[in-house]
Formats: sequence, C-alpha cells, structure tokens
Amino acid sequence: MNSTSLFGDMLQAITDRGRKLLFSGQRDDDADPLRALEQLCETLLSSRGEASGMALSTTILDRWMRLDRDRQQAFLKRLVTAFDADHARLEKAIEAYGVDPGPKAQMELHLAAEPRRQELLRRFNLAPHGTETLVRMREALLTMKRDAPELEILDADFAHLFASWFNRGFLMLRQINWSTPADILEKIIRYEAVHHIGSWEELRLRLAPADRRCFAFFHPQLADDPLIFVEVALTRDIPGAISDVLRDDRTQLDAAEATTAVFYSISNCQEGLRGISFGNFLIKQVVEDLRRELPRLSTFVTLSPVPGFAAWLKTEREQEAPGALTAFDKTRLAALDQPDWASDPEAVAQLRPVLTEAAAWYFLKGRDARGRVIDPVARFHLGNGARLERINVLGDTSQRALRQSHGLMVNYLYKLDDIEANHEAFIGRNEVVAAQPIRRLVPADRGAKAVPMIAEISGPSAPSSKGSKEFSA
Amino acid sequence: MNSTSLFGDMLQAITDRGRKLLFSGQRDDDADPLRALEQLCETLLSSRGEASGMALSTTILDRWMRLDRDRQQAFLKRLVTAFDADHARLEKAIEAYGVDPGPKAQMELHLAAEPRRQELLRRFNLAPHGTETLVRMREALLTMKRDAPELEILDADFAHLFASWFNRGFLMLRQINWSTPADILEKIIRYEAVHHIGSWEELRLRLAPADRRCFAFFHPQLADDPLIFVEVALTRDIPGAISDVLRDDRTQLDAAEATTAVFYSISNCQEGLRGISFGNFLIKQVVEDLRRELPRLSTFVTLSPVPGFAAWLKTEREQEAPGALTAFDKTRLAALDQPDWASDPEAVAQLRPVLTEAAAWYFLKGRDARGRVIDPVARFHLGNGARLERINVLGDTSQRALRQSHGLMVNYLYKLDDIEANHEAFIGRNEVVAAQPIRRLVPADRGAKAVPMIAEISGPSAPSSKGSKEFSA
Amino acid sequence: MNSTSLFGDMLQAITDRGRKLLFSGQRDDDADPLRALEQLCETLLSSRGEASGMALSTTILDRWMRLDRDRQQAFLKRLVTAFDADHARLEKAIEAYGVDPGPKAQMELHLAAEPRRQELLRRFNLAPHGTETLVRMREALLTMKRDAPELEILDADFAHLFASWFNRGFLMLRQINWSTPADILEKIIRYEAVHHIGSWEELRLRLAPADRRCFAFFHPQLADDPLIFVEVALTRDIPGAISDVLRDDRTQLDAAEATTAVFYSISNCQEGLRGISFGNFLIKQVVEDLRRELPRLSTFVTLSPVPGFAAWLKTEREQEAPGALTAFDKTRLAALDQPDWASDPEAVAQLRPVLTEAAAWYFLKGRDARGRVIDPVARFHLGNGARLERINVLGDTSQRALRQSHGLMVNYLYKLDDIEANHEAFIGRNEVVAAQPIRRLVPADRGAKAVPMIAEISGPSAPSSKGSKEFSA
Amino acid sequence: MNSTSLFGDMLQAITDRGRKLLFSGQRDDDADPLRALEQLCETLLSSRGEASGMALSTTILDRWMRLDRDRQQAFLKRLVTAFDADHARLEKAIEAYGVDPGPKAQMELHLAAEPRRQELLRRFNLAPHGTETLVRMREALLTMKRDAPELEILDADFAHLFASWFNRGFLMLRQINWSTPADILEKIIRYEAVHHIGSWEELRLRLAPADRRCFAFFHPQLADDPLIFVEVALTRDIPGAISDVLRDDRTQLDAAEATTAVFYSISNCQEGLRGISFGNFLIKQVVEDLRRELPRLSTFVTLSPVPGFAAWLKTEREQEAPGALTAFDKTRLAALDQPDWASDPEAVAQLRPVLTEAAAWYFLKGRDARGRVIDPVARFHLGNGARLERINVLGDTSQRALRQSHGLMVNYLYKLDDIEANHEAFIGRNEVVAAQPIRRLVPADRGAKAVPMIAEISGPSAPSSKGSKEFSA
Repeated sequence: MNSTSLFGDMLQAITDRGRKLLFSGQRDDDADPLRALEQLCETLLSSRGEASGMALSTTILDRWMRLDRDRQQAFLKRLVTAFDADHARLEKAIEAYGVDPGPKAQMELHLAAEPRRQELLRRFNLAPHGTETLVRMREALLTMKRDAPELEILDADFAHLFASWFNRGFLMLRQINWSTPADILEKIIRYEAVHHIGSWEELRLRLAPADRRCFAFFHPQLADDPLIFVEVALTRDIPGAISDVLRDDRTQLDAAEATTAVFYSISNCQEGLRGISFGNFLIKQVVEDLRRELPRLSTFVTLSPVPGFAAWLKTEREQEAPGALTAFDKTRLAALDQPDWASDPEAVAQLRPVLTEAAAWYFLKGRDARGRVIDPVARFHLGNGARLERINVLGDTSQRALRQSHGLMVNYLYKLDDIEANHEAFIGRNEVVAAQPIRRLVPADRGAKAVPMIAEISGPSAPSSKGSKEFSA
Repeated sequence: MNSTSLFGDMLQAITDRGRKLLFSGQRDDDADPLRALEQLCETLLSSRGEASGMALSTTILDRWMRLDRDRQQAFLKRLVTAFDADHARLEKAIEAYGVDPGPKAQMELHLAAEPRRQELLRRFNLAPHGTETLVRMREALLTMKRDAPELEILDADFAHLFASWFNRGFLMLRQINWSTPADILEKIIRYEAVHHIGSWEELRLRLAPADRRCFAFFHPQLADDPLIFVEVALTRDIPGAISDVLRDDRTQLDAAEATTAVFYSISNCQEGLRGISFGNFLIKQVVEDLRRELPRLSTFVTLSPVPGFAAWLKTEREQEAPGALTAFDKTRLAALDQPDWASDPEAVAQLRPVLTEAAAWYFLKGRDARGRVIDPVARFHLGNGARLERINVLGDTSQRALRQSHGLMVNYLYKLDDIEANHEAFIGRNEVVAAQPIRRLVPADRGAKAVPMIAEISGPSAPSSKGSKEFSA
Repeated sequence: MNSTSLFGDMLQAITDRGRKLLFSGQRDDDADPLRALEQLCETLLSSRGEASGMALSTTILDRWMRLDRDRQQAFLKRLVTAFDADHARLEKAIEAYGVDPGPKAQMELHLAAEPRRQELLRRFNLAPHGTETLVRMREALLTMKRDAPELEILDADFAHLFASWFNRGFLMLRQINWSTPADILEKIIRYEAVHHIGSWEELRLRLAPADRRCFAFFHPQLADDPLIFVEVALTRDIPGAISDVLRDDRTQLDAAEATTAVFYSISNCQEGLRGISFGNFLIKQVVEDLRRELPRLSTFVTLSPVPGFAAWLKTEREQEAPGALTAFDKTRLAALDQPDWASDPEAVAQLRPVLTEAAAWYFLKGRDARGRVIDPVARFHLGNGARLERINVLGDTSQRALRQSHGLMVNYLYKLDDIEANHEAFIGRNEVVAAQPIRRLVPADRGAKAVPMIAEISGPSAPSSKGSKEFSA
Repeated sequence: MNSTSLFGDMLQAITDRGRKLLFSGQRDDDADPLRALEQLCETLLSSRGEASGMALSTTILDRWMRLDRDRQQAFLKRLVTAFDADHARLEKAIEAYGVDPGPKAQMELHLAAEPRRQELLRRFNLAPHGTETLVRMREALLTMKRDAPELEILDADFAHLFASWFNRGFLMLRQINWSTPADILEKIIRYEAVHHIGSWEELRLRLAPADRRCFAFFHPQLADDPLIFVEVALTRDIPGAISDVLRDDRTQLDAAEATTAVFYSISNCQEGLRGISFGNFLIKQVVEDLRRELPRLSTFVTLSPVPGFAAWLKTEREQEAPGALTAFDKTRLAALDQPDWASDPEAVAQLRPVLTEAAAWYFLKGRDARGRVIDPVARFHLGNGARLERINVLGDTSQRALRQSHGLMVNYLYKLDDIEANHEAFIGRNEVVAAQPIRRLVPADRGAKAVPMIAEISGPSAPSSKGSKEFSA
C-alpha cells in the first residue's frame, strides 16, 4: 500500500510541475471555467497532449472535481456535444464504404464514428488516480442522466471503456480477513449491501473465525478499494436462515471438517462500475479456491434474499383471475396482514405451506413484462448456471426482509458439473432449473398466466443494471 | 511473484475443469482444427461465452499456440475475414445516420462498424496469461503481415486494444537493482538493445554501484516481464563516450554528490507492443524520481547513438550538387575509407571537425523524403522536448557504431522548464532545438538542400514504429 | 503475516509427527503429569534432545499450557529446585578457581554455576511459538511470585534470557497507521494504557489524520504483537491539556507545516517482558525518523501524566514540619477537598499557583525513601535525558487523573543536543534538569526536606519494574 | 530488503548524530587507539551506556573494523584480560555460597563469574549491523586463536552468545529459487562448498528446473545473507553419482511425479558461526516441507562425499597387522596407484569390490583416536538419525573427490520413523546403523582393530567444529 501511495506522490510531483509550466498566467480561466476546461480538452487531444498529457489530464480532472454540481453536469453535456465524431471524416468514410465495403473501409468507418470523447477519457486516465476519478465521474453521471437523457450516450462511452479496463483478466482476487488493513476493512463495512454490518465487532465475527471466509476482486489502479466481495460460511449443512449463519454463540467449526460453503452475501462496491459484471467470475473463482484449500468441501450453495417476492405476491392477491393463487391460498395469506405474524407460531404454521407454494410459482412460472424471471437475484444466479435448491420460510426476519419478501430466503446450488447445462437451459430456453421438491410444488394442471415469450431475452448481466448493490447471494 | 503464480495456478485449475466439461468427446476437432477453433470463437462471442468465457478462451489460446506457423497465420486471416462487422447492422446504421446524424446514430455506427474480432480479443484476455499470450500473438502477427498485407487490419485492432490496456495510467515504475529477482534480471540482459550486456558480471556493474540506476515500467498482467527500461549513470559532467560510462575501473561516485544523470541506454522489451509508446513517460518519470531522491542533480542528459548518420553521409559524399558537404569536406572525409582510421590519431584529428560539421547539418538541415528529421533517435528525443546538446566524435568505437555512425554519439538535454517549448518547436514548426555551438556549425549562407515540407508531419511516436528495439538513449 | 503462519503450520506438522514418535504409549503420564513433565525436561537437556528438541519442547510447552494454575506454579517451582546447577561440578569449579583464578577457571565457574533451567528455557524456544509461550509463562510467573518468593530466582533467569533475546538490535520499528492489519490494531486498542481508546472510531482518530503518527517496536518472533508503542501528535505549539490533543473537532494540520511533535502516550504491551526496557530506544528512534520525514519539526516534547503527585501532596499537607508547603499553601490547597473544584473557576484560579509551585517542589526537591525522584514517569524521561519543561494545571480532567495528580500534566522536552548532558546530570548527580521558569518556583532559602542520599541509586530502568504498563509519555 | 536498508540508514543517522555529540574534541584518541577503545567499552558498560548505547557501540565497532590486524587482535586480547569478572564480587559470592548453597547464592555466583565482556558483546549488538559485525569479529577471532590460545576463552563467550541468538526458534526458512534477488544468489554461488558452482548459468541449472529445490535458513538480523542452505534434486531413484544429478542434458521431471528427494549439497555459510549447528534442523524441516508440497515423495536420501576415506585407507594399506584389509585386498588396491585408474575400466572392475568392502569397514568398524566414527560427514548424518544406505564407487570423479575418497560417495537415508531409534543407537551406543547389504560386507570373524571405547563420546555437533564449511550432504 505504501509503495502505491509513494508512487502516487511522485506522479503528483510530476504533474504539479507540469501544470505550473503549462498554465502560469492563464488565470482568466475563471471567467468561463467551462470554456477553459473545454479548451484544455482540445489541447489534450492535440499532439501537444502527447508531451504534456499527464499535466493536462490532471488539471482537467482536478478542476472538474472542484466544480459545483451544475457545472459538472454542464461539462459532461459539452463532452457529448463538442466531442463527438468528426462529421466530415465520417461522411467520407461512409462514402468509401459504399464504394468498397472491405475490412479497411469498415475499420475507417469504425474509427471515424468513434466519438472523440472516448480518446479523451483514455487520456484522462494519464492523471494520477485517473482511473479512480473516472469511476467517480461516472457515478455522478449515473445520477445526472436521470434528468438529462442526452447524457445516456456518454454513459455508453464510459461503459464501453470500463468493460475493457475492468476485464476480468486484469482483476486480482484477494482474501479479506482479520489481517487485512483497516482502511480496506472499513470499506467492507460501508459497502456491505445485504446483511448490514453494524460495528467492527460484527465485522470481526464475519472474518476472524476459522469457519468464515471473505474474498474480493481488486483492480491494480484502485488498489485499496474492492470492486466486489463475497462472504462465505463453512458449515456442515445447508442453512435455511441467516440468523443461523450470523449468530455469534454458534460452535465454530474446524474449516477442514466443513462439507458446505455458503455464499451468504455478495456486494458490488463501486456504483460507478454499474453494469460491469464481476459476480459470475467471483463466485466461480472462489468455488475453485475453496475446493483447493479444503478438499472435503462438496456443496457450494448460497443463502439469498428474494427481493421481488412481496411485491409480486401483493399483485397476485389482488387479482381476480385464477393464477398463481387459489381462493383458498388467498384466504390463508390473509394472515400476512396481521402485524407481527412472524412471531406468532400459529400464523407461521398456517402460512408456511402457502408461502412456499407461492414462491415456487414465483420462480418457476412468474415472469415480468419482458418475459423474464422476476427476481433479480434469481436471474443472476440462474444465469450463472446455479439451480434453485430450497425455499426457506422466515429465513430472514429483519424488517427489510419482511417487507421485501415476507422473510423468505432461498438457496441456489452451484454444482460445477451442471453449471454449463443449467446456464444453457436458462439463457437458451428461459427454463428455471430447480430441485425436484420445488418443481413438485407447482401444479401441472392449473394454467399458467400467459407469459409474453419475447425473443430477445436479456441475459445474466441484466440484474446488475437494476440494483447493482444488491443482487447479493 | 509467488502470489502471482499461485493465482495463475488457480486460474489454470478452474479452466482445466471448465474445458473438460466443455469439450469432452469433441475429439474430431482434429480433422479440421481451424474450423473447430473458429467455432469456439463463435461460441465465445455468444451468450454462452459469458458463463464459460474463461474455459473457452483458454482453450482457444492454447490450441492456437500449438498450431504450426502456417496454421497460426491461417487462423489470424480468418479473424480478418470471418469476424468483421455485421454488415446488415452496419447498413442499417448508415441509413439511420443519414436520416438523423445525432450522437446516438453516430454511436450505433461506431459500434456496428466495430469488427467482431475486437470483442473476441477482449474475451481472449479472460484466459490465464491471456494478456501475455495476446502480446505474443501480435509479435507473430508483425512478422506475418510482411508477406500478408491483409493482416494489416488485424494489427490495427491489436494496436487499438493495446493502446487502451497499456495506457500509462496502468503502468508501474519499478527500480531494477542488484536485489531484483534473477528471473527479471536475465530479461534485462536479454532485452538490452543498445550497449550489449555480455554476462552477469557486466550486469552487476550496471546495477550494483552506488552511481548507477535502472528503472523499468511493468504492467500488472506481465508482472515479471518489463515493458521498457532505462539505464542511468550518475556523474559530475556530461560524458562524450560510452566507454567512459561503462569502464569498470572508474572511481565510483557517492550518489549524493552527483550533479548529472546520464540516460545511456533505453530498450523496449516487448516486440508485440511495437508502436505503443512508453519511452516519453519513462524518461520524465525517472527525471522526477531522481530529482526527489537526489536534490543536487541539476542536469539530465542522454548519451545517444546516431544510427542514421553513416548512411546519410554516404549519400552526401556521392552526390555532385552542393549540399551538406563542400568539395573540401569530401576530400577530408576520404580518410573514413581507410580501415582502422579510428585508431589512427592523425586521421581522427583530420576527421573530427568535418564529421562534427556534417553531423550538425544532418540534424539541423537534413530531412528525409517525408520532410522529417532523419535520425529516429533524434526524432524520439526532440519529440519529447529535449534539445540537441553536444556532438561527440568517436563516442562509441564498437564495430556496430562505426558502421552506423562512424562512431558518433550525441547528447540530448532534458531541461524541464524548456520541454514544453522545445516540443512545440519540433512538432509544431519542425524546428530542431540545438545548443548554440551546434547551431553555429551550420553556415547560414550555403543553401540547404530543398526540403520537401509536407503538411502532415508524423510525430514523435513514429520512430518507435520503425525500430522499436533501438531508439535508445 | 501469512508466511509467518504458514511457517508456524509447518513447524506444527513437524512437531506433531515428532511427538507421535516420541510419546506413543506413554499415556500413564496422566498419573503424575508434573513428574512426566520433569522427565521430558531431563530428556530435552540430554543428547537425545538434540535430535528431537523441537518435538520435546513443543510437548512440554503444550502440556504446561493445559495445566491448571496450581500445577503450572508447581512446575515452575520444580524448575527452581530440580534444575539448578550441578553442585558437584560447581564445587570442583570453585576449587579450581581457588588454585588459579585465571579466565578459564572463571569461565568454568560461570558455566558451572549457570542453573540448568537456563539451557532448558533456551531449548523450550525450539517449539513453534516458543518465544511467545515463554513470554506468557513469565507473565504468569510475575503474578505467582507475589506469593511464592522462591520463584524470584526463576524470574531472574527469564529476565536474563529476555534481555539477550529482546536486545534492541533485534527489534524492528514499524509505523502503525490506518493501513495496518486489523489484528494488530485491535491490540493497540487493548494495550493502550494511558489515554483509553474506547472504540475503533476513536482509534481511527488517533491514526488516520495527517497530523497523527504512531510507531511500535516488534520482535521477529512475535510478529503480529507489538512490544511497545508511542502515539504522536504533530502540532504548532506545546499543548498543555490532553483534551486539546484528542479533540476530534480540531482543525487538522498539514504534517509538513508542523513544528512540534508531541508524544502523548507510550504503552508497554507485554506484561511478560516487564523490566526489559524499550521506551528509551523507541523515543529516540522516533525523534530521528520524524526529523527525517518532516524537516520542519524542531520541538520534541511529551505530554505526560504525574501519577505520584496526589499521594505526595497528601502527605505534605498532613505533615506539621515546614517542607514543601507553607501554612498559607496549605490553606489555599483546602480548595482541593471541595468536590468538583475542577469545574469551579474560582477554585481553579486560587489553586493554580499553589499547585504549580507544589509540583515544582515535587519534581525538583521531593525524593522517595531511596533518594530517588518520586514520580516514575519523571524518572523514565529524565533518565532518558529529557528535561522538565512545563507544568500544566488541569491538563487532564479525567477521574483517574484527578485522583492521581489533581489533573496535573507536564511536558518533558527532548532536545537532542542536551540529552547526553541531562542524562549525566540526572544519573550521575541525581539532579533534575528543568526549564528556568520551573526552577524559579522553588525557593532557594526554604530548607529542603532531608533527602536520604544513598549511594546506590537505581537508574532509569527502575520505573518500568513498578508500573510497566504506565510510565507513559 | 529495502525496508531493511532504510532502517539501517535511519539507525546510521541516529548514531552519526550520537557520536558527534559524544566524541567531539576527543581526537587525541589517535595517540593510543586501543586505550581509547577500552575506555569507550568501559563507558558502554556504565550507566551512561544506557542513554548512549547505540552511539557508543557503533563507534567501537567502527573503530575496531578500521584497525589493522595486529591491533584488532590486541583489542580482543584486552577483552580477555580487562573485561573478565569482578574478582571481589566473585570472591564474595563464593564465600556466600559456602555458607548457604541455595539457588540465590548459586545465581549470584553465576552472575558474578560472568565475564564482563559478555555484557559488552550484548551491548555491541545495539549498533546498526551489530550482529553482522560480531559474526565477522568472531570469524577473525577463529583465525587469530590458532596462534593465541589465550583467545580461546573469548571464543567461548562468542559461542555461548551466538547459541542463544541463533537459536533455531529465531531462524526463518526460505526457499531459494530463480526468483530470489540476485544479491542473495551471488552468495549461494560463493558459499557453495561441496559441488562448485562455476557460473550463473550453472546456478540457474540448480535452481530453475522444476525438479530442483533449494532451501536456506536466514536470521532476521542478517536478512540478505543465508546461514546454511541445502540443494535438493527430485528424482525417481537414489542416484549413485553426482554427475547424474548435475548433468544438464537429463530429462527434467515433473515435480509431482518424483518419489525421491536427494540432498546433494549442504553448505554452512558463516565461518563466524562455526560450531552453531543448523544442519540437523534444516534437513528435517525441508523433509517436512517437501512432504507437504509433494505427497508422493517417499524417500529422503543424501548423496554425500566421504572426505576421510582416502587418508584412512592409506594408513590401513601401510600397516602390517591384520585389520580392515587382508593381504589380498592390499594387492588388489595397488591399482589405485596407477594414474588415471578411474578411466581404466579394467582397473575399476578390479577395485570396485575391494573399495566397497573397505568402505563398509571404514564406516562400521573404523574409529578415530577418540573412538569416534572417522568420517565427519558420517558423524553428522548418523548423529541426525540417518542410516548409511549405499556405497557408490566412483560417485564423484572430480580431482578433489579422487584425492579425498578415491571418488567414493555414499547415500544416507532419512526415514522419519527410524530417526529417533537410529540417533539413540549412534549417540547412546556408538553403533552405526547401516543397510543390510553394507553390514554383510563386514566379516564377523576377522577381529576388529581394538577400538578405544571411551565413555564420553562427543556428539553430532562435533564435526562442524572441524570443517564447518564442508560436512555437506
């Protein structure tokens, strides 16, 4: 870590000097800072940018960071309007392609159509901490574009660039444990998006015991800041409730005796990298690492939330037409409306079977308007090739879980030999692979709600573009 | 290093398993391995590639590595023909752009025109050691394209990708010294392209003494393999001969007392990264680092070869028309034809002034057919903003130097405060900035050979595309 | 850290195997575990111990750790009685020395008189984590010897051994900051003995800000466990109250602009190393490190508690004979008996001058029964060559400080050029070096209490044998 | 490594300053430097030494290093004469012991008899690089004491101290491979004492191949300088000739397929640590490490020289009385006198059986004047618990091996389950454990040469005090 910051310091020194040379005396920039920034961008793209690229990019990023929100947005808009492709060159390229559509013409078309801001973003990366600043810039952009749809195109530029820079080939897997530097650990606390970590003592309970593991992906340019991490419990059977996993009075297991690895929380860390998918790679890598370290492990399973269930169930309960729920189901489900039903054993006993059956329908037959499995977490794990293994009523009794899913949790099973086939079934045929007991819960006779089987089904990366911080485990 | 290879091992384990799953039973690939490879590439680009990308890319790269040369080339050609853009999509994008040439249409045009092989190359990078293998693949490609111009377009794809991946923001500067692991040091011996390192003892003399330094850029994915390195001597004055720098019986200097840092050798290491320019950044970074470490250093200078001089002088001597040389010059230069003139003090005394004057003309007025300064090393340093400081007759008496430049060496001076202006002069106005004594050697009156001042002057990165291994110092 | 534990694992593997070989079938040890342990110790000292030393020592330490408290103590007593010197050999050595008291006879006398348990302790160290276990063993011993004075001699053996093993030449200085692994940081929280750290957030405030530093000594064999650490605040002037240092709403200083380094807390960490002095070396090393890093620092000063002051003042107030206090002083000091005087401005105003004068006397003229400066913290810093710089009334208003010193704190100044002379004055002449304003507070005329000037004055290491955890800053 | 030297630099800075303070103006030391040094030693032992120990010890060691050889020796002699125990205190301690020989009196006797120079040596260790300098000092001492027996006693002090400081518990095992820093590797080349390493290329052949390993012990204070290392070849059978192991045209083995680990070279590195035994621990640790890494390994064996064989055989051939050799044996052995017999197949065929039988006798029945097994390498391995496994005629045809052992090499087998018993047999009963085929070669009837079975047999550490650099493998 030290060497990283030393290096950062040195870069700083270089660019400080460079900037002094470049910009001494140009203080009338203040009159129109946006205009000045735009000019600097033009210089950075010019040949002069080659000699002074580091100084120029540092200045631009620094100044942008110090702008107020409105001006930051205004600058991003100028990137869209003032740094698109060179139209004259593009017209010529189109013409040439019309004459001879060979690879050269094609390539020239590709290059001519590349917005100049893409090269600009690449050159911004010359600045010390350039990558990090660009990730922050996109984080801001994602918020801004809600009200400014013209920024969508710039977001696509960022996404394109980041997909290349954050290619899995460049990521490093590191274990997070109680010997990890505190500045990284405090980020784990902050980024945890599924099961809140309330204090350092709670963090310790997730990292220090012999039957706990945590792994994260890092990028060389964001050395102290994880991209995504997964928390794992080593157990002897598949847990049905998060409280069993997290309770601190449990008997700790000798890791070598565990048979089961439970992925109970996955969190994306960088809002600015939304849509760049790491989770699939992370889970598979961790499965392999754990198998290597602990050869007795034979079951790899998640304990996952079901964030879309309660909303779906509400709709089903309200609708007249026969569908997922029978009239009798609806009657029994009325117990859900009673406050504190979760601590009333009678209510729970009544609800357990009907919630389980409804959930089976939700996963196996329920589909959203685009024909997709409704639950984003399910889409993530099924798209990765896992199968739906078990439905757990009252797996999570936190307020949030009760609100989102009436406390339901499920397990997804990662069985290496089936991953490929499961993935094909899900992606290729829109089929949900589930364990036999779950499949049996869905009656073959009762007609399924008409599902709009549309051709273009968005794949496993889709969920992350919705709730990037929370497709967890 | 260990952790790197451990990680590599793990990746290997994952992909081994993945491949077993994917390709069991498909052994009839052997019938048409190229066809099979192409199919794998199609799969890798499909949605299935998302679940099994690591296994697929590993298989493809492995198989390609094991092909014979002819089939390797055949595969690369198929990349050009079978993985260009989707023409239907492209036609549609052109049409849409015709209707409304806004940013969205432009972006779609850019994306539609992107050859599919670019995404393919990005996915290849998922394989363990993917980046390294791709660098080796391009190395092969550079040789192949000499006889197969249709591969030029694929080379452009590689260059585009590498420019992004090897962006200076991702490089790490490391000092190379006598505590550096031997497996890296043996690469320094192998890659040194300017002043041959004959043995480990010679290497030791360049790294271990207190008045020597060496710095290299590394990329996280090629962890034990440098991209470029520079060797530095700390001295009290500007040396005129390489033998003064390398002699092992010199008195070693306490680094803290040095006033001058001499960059006497720069070598690019990765043929597969030809055209991706690192030298400019490396020199400037090292200047800053040294200034930090040794505040007494005030002069930063190279001791550089002049590889184009002998060839140019031959032409000048042969031509009748008055130009760089007067008749008297030519007479005096006849001494060069005498074998062993370099060890004949009389011949040297006679040649010294005329060689110096001719060299001044060579740098200041000589231009190649494209109007550029002739010497590639000069173009590199002048393009970086250095100035031509001194001409040294018999600076290098090795056979190679005598053949290339009649033994001439020069010093380029890096003065931080002038770099920007010098760069502008050279790039913007095609002017060579040189020290006053050199400028005085070129007579104002004698008409310069007509220089074809063409508009588009290729910049400082050009030399590297010629002799990537040798623009050194 | 990983490599350490890996190594530990391997040692474990070796010794596990070794023990299996050695002790299979000897389960009747359980009958008389102490007897069995003693036998193992004899074996360890025999030649057989050379081949199986690691296994034997591991077994012995393991078994000892698992004994109950009484048996642990019984074993330590056996070390005293059963493993003293070989009397026959010793008698012979005394005789030989009588004949010829040359160096050889002397050496033999030294060796013959060495209790065999010293070699035993050295061989215990062959076990994995041997050093650590021995430190824990002595920790237990220090408690036990209160009621078992015969163990005193064993403690001397430990002290002798540890003085050699924990020689300053073997210690490593490491900076503790917010990038330090959490398992080390939690020890900092636990070991802090002067100004309690209540939470990780409070720890962060002491480590993360740019104007804070913390340094610790480590020993290679206790890699994750500090021996002693010091906390430093970088400021622009000498603080008089700990609350000024620790307040979290202060304006943070750019470290480069600080002129003063304040050592506001020093804590010994290992009770088992009591009497082995590190503090002197630590402070001086840190002074040098900080001077190197921050050349503007010119003042190095502590902010220290005065733990003996309240007790001394009580005695003085109670005694009739004229001494430190005049009758008028005593009248004014009555305000101390009023509860909450510290928050009563009038009381504080009245007490301030008299407390200051009394404190000056306490340091300059007060002496304990052995003729030493009374305050242990004062003895530590004065013995290190610091001088008493300033007395701060109500420097610490915590309950503990009010109880120990009526809230008084003082500053000791470390001025490198004077350290040697100050040390000489204190050690050689029992003189307290203090700043002029403090010296002026002590009237020259009023006769000092008769000080028993005994010849043998115990030096600066003495305090640590009293309150090892708390001589701090 | 860097941090080590940084730390060294800082220590340097401290002590530079300290020394300036201490010794300014005392330049008349030059008149009698030894006297001045002695005075500094007295100061270092005084209480003042506690405040300025680092500066004082640094000065003393520096000055000693710069003395000429004669004065260095004179200083060491003064350590013997001027820094022995305090005789008055010692007499008193003897007297007290006479009155009551309890543990306290004993301890006081031990302390009083400790030469003051032992504490002095411990304080020398405060200097930066103190440990290293003390090791060098003893290296010099070992040479000097040949002509100055009065230094023997000082050597005992060093040995006592080093046995404590270089306790196996403080050593770190590190693998040496082709990624090891060059400055350590050049020491491997220099220290290799058994099978000369002629160049970096030869070194590479011993470290880089997949079927080679090398391990070394390091001490934290000599971080870049190994104490002892062992070279290992991974094979499929027990080799009989060193040329088979070292040949570079052999087929390399996949490490995972090896069944046998051959320790073919062990070298002690630090002459100054002679007599401090590491080899036993190193071999056993490496055996464990390799078993962990490569579970298929089942045989751990050396390929070792027999340095005492040729000298012994010469004596046997010359003696008339029947002993190891029959008359017929002597006749056949005459072939040894023929030059180049080793390359004459006929001579070899004739010599093979008789050399083998003689060697069996040499190991099993031959004893030196002290009743010990003659061969120092044999004593080392047998003392470690290995057994003599095989005798290899012409195992090493180098000039040196032909001279020392007529080219004979042997294998010692380390079988973990037998180590304890073998060790007991050798140490306890002076029995050589050998494989059955070797034992059969020694006729039961022919009377053994009378062996002086003396009671006190010196153990396995003895050999190292003879040829510390060469008990190898």
